[in-house]
Amino acid sequence: MAAPLRGGDLSRLRQLNALAAVGTLRSAGPLTLSALAERTGLSRPSTKEVVDELMRLGWVEETPPAQGTIGRPARRYRFRATSGHLVGLDIGGHNIRAALSDLNGEILAETRQPVQPDTPLDERLAAIERTVASCLALAGKTIDDVWIVAAGTIGVVTPEGRIRYCAAIPAWTGLDLAGHLRGMFPCEVLVENDSRLAAKSEAVRGAVRDASDVVFLHVGRRMGAAVIIGGKVHRGFGAAAGEIAMLPQAQLFDASEHLQNCPVIPEDTSPADAAGYTLAAARAGDPVALAAVERYVDDLAVGTSAMVLLLDPQVVVLGGGFSRSADVLLPRLRERLERACIRPPELRASTLGDECVVTGAIDYAVAHIDDRHFTPDVPLPTSR
Amino acid sequence: MAAPLRGGDLSRLRQLNALAAVGTLRSAGPLTLSALAERTGLSRPSTKEVVDELMRLGWVEETPPAQGTIGRPARRYRFRATSGHLVGLDIGGHNIRAALSDLNGEILAETRQPVQPDTPLDERLAAIERTVASCLALAGKTIDDVWIVAAGTIGVVTPEGRIRYCAAIPAWTGLDLAGHLRGMFPCEVLVENDSRLAAKSEAVRGAVRDASDVVFLHVGRRMGAAVIIGGKVHRGFGAAAGEIAMLPQAQLFDASEHLQNCPVIPEDTSPADAAGYTLAAARAGDPVALAAVERYVDDLAVGTSAMVLLLDPQVVVLGGGFSRSADVLLPRLRERLERACIRPPELRASTLGDECVVTGAIDYAVAHIDDRHFTPDVPLPTSR
Repeated sequence: MAAPLRGGDLSRLRQLNALAAVGTLRSAGPLTLSALAERTGLSRPSTKEVVDELMRLGWVEETPPAQGTIGRPARRYRFRATSGHLVGLDIGGHNIRAALSDLNGEILAETRQPVQPDTPLDERLAAIERTVASCLALAGKTIDDVWIVAAGTIGVVTPEGRIRYCAAIPAWTGLDLAGHLRGMFPCEVLVENDSRLAAKSEAVRGAVRDASDVVFLHVGRRMGAAVIIGGKVHRGFGAAAGEIAMLPQAQLFDASEHLQNCPVIPEDTSPADAAGYTLAAARAGDPVALAAVERYVDDLAVGTSAMVLLLDPQVVVLGGGFSRSADVLLPRLRERLERACIRPPELRASTLGDECVVTGAIDYAVAHIDDRHFTPDVPLPTSR
Repeated sequence: MAAPLRGGDLSRLRQLNALAAVGTLRSAGPLTLSALAERTGLSRPSTKEVVDELMRLGWVEETPPAQGTIGRPARRYRFRATSGHLVGLDIGGHNIRAALSDLNGEILAETRQPVQPDTPLDERLAAIERTVASCLALAGKTIDDVWIVAAGTIGVVTPEGRIRYCAAIPAWTGLDLAGHLRGMFPCEVLVENDSRLAAKSEAVRGAVRDASDVVFLHVGRRMGAAVIIGGKVHRGFGAAAGEIAMLPQAQLFDASEHLQNCPVIPEDTSPADAAGYTLAAARAGDPVALAAVERYVDDLAVGTSAMVLLLDPQVVVLGGGFSRSADVLLPRLRERLERACIRPPELRASTLGDECVVTGAIDYAVAHIDDRHFTPDVPLPTSR
């Protein structure tokens, strides 16, 4: 782990110069000293001094010279993304997932452990700790290598990381989740709603990297939603946005029952596989399964149309577990939105599937680092 | 009318300095030369030169000295808001309203003319022209004094100012409204959805000057909605946001029928006064009118809850014609939102009433001027 950049060992001015250099290398990629000097506004000698110091502290590294270069190429420097690590957590009703990444959000290891919605609280918390520990072990790291644990969970999460309300996990409502996680992990802890994290990940590395007004449908056994407006995931005044499924008339909350309880599902099928069975049978042309899918999409289209008519997004993304069956669902949803909406949006399938929340938690932590750690909080002085 | 500031009579640098000075005086109010120099980064002599030129061109004026000042106070200068004028238009199904303002949005005159939803297109356009002409005459101005005509209209308006769809005015769908208005008025023409303009006005001069996440309910015989997110009125990717009333399950479109067709309304009441009669009777305690109000609010609460659950706004504003009866409507709406929503928002009544669209059109034009005319489009050079 690199030495902390905000420690008292650098003067304020040198610290700001170092932050400017790290921030620039982080966003602009490998640069020569001259290019870095130009972008930061620092003199060439100051830039050299700052880069030497950052290399000594472990924040910056030299890139290997490009293949086939003739003569002696100028040295190029880049942010050392393994200066620290991030853990992303997805705490759902039926699964706990963890991922470990470097500071650029590159995933180094992933683990998953099934739970049940009614798993007792202490067992669920223990499962979280185990899932993270095995993820760290898988990558040969320890919790001391980790800067941030960012957790996404189903339910309405307050800005302080408490669970205001959770229909999916009975033991969750009222829980100080951030507090419990801070007790578990000796690093910074962030907690966010899972659908919002998934939407962020679609914007950062998924299906809507090119769009800034998006409705994200988090479809699975539980239904969630999130909206991106002007390129930002919308949290709401009390961090409670996205809960349209709570309105019975939106027909979203119980929509998945059509798929979960379809008569085509063999009796011994686990609930975790039931909807998938119906969707596969529909894909194969089973008329009973197809009828169930039509009813499911009828319901899904009501709440989705409400969001589309209200916000007029560029794209609606179908994400979450059921997005694996986007080939079955999207054409049917498109047909209904074209009937109900004035300007039907483009529809896309998630490219992240079940991983969307855990990668979203990582992407949220990366953004947090950029905001808090690599942005000087006063204007950058230029030393000439 | 002041001479145009973008004419070729000023060099580029002098033009930029002039724009910086005008922009600063416009946003910061009356300033001394020293204060203006400090805020623009111009030298004191350059500031004097720019201000003299702007006074000669009619853009800046000296403010009268404050009462009771002892000695010779420093001269203070302000933007001359009457350098140009703006027209706001509200084109609804039942009324056409016009307002004339100065460049600060201060209203100088207002006119209104009733029409009918089925008024033929040419008569409606003629009524628009008459309403604007009488508004100008009332203030002793001509169309040559006007920089911008900004029109708000019911219906879905494209970014180019065409009416994509309008349920309320049959002749409106497909109309190139901006084109027709440009044929009528020899100045810049802007066209926007009426509910979005009303929401803007609530943010600029109305009930939510302090809030940046707002749902605006435009309640009257027709129901509209607009959302403010992060301080900006949300237009949507194709400028079609706010149309949740088009979704039958949102129960908004026909909600006003409960008030329009209540049995308590005397037979000879004009449709324009029917809902107002029911609301007044409910306020007086008439049980039949009260039952109609309850049914109306039941419907209104469904679509409103969908918006609140999705966006978690700080405030919901009840605006438009029915907002005069906010005392009857708001407590009932509050009760339902508290039942249906996870984090019920604050509810407020509009302070603009029937004028909200026309003042919103003015406020939209003022913002347009700030964006387009008083903001240099390249970084300001500092001359020392």
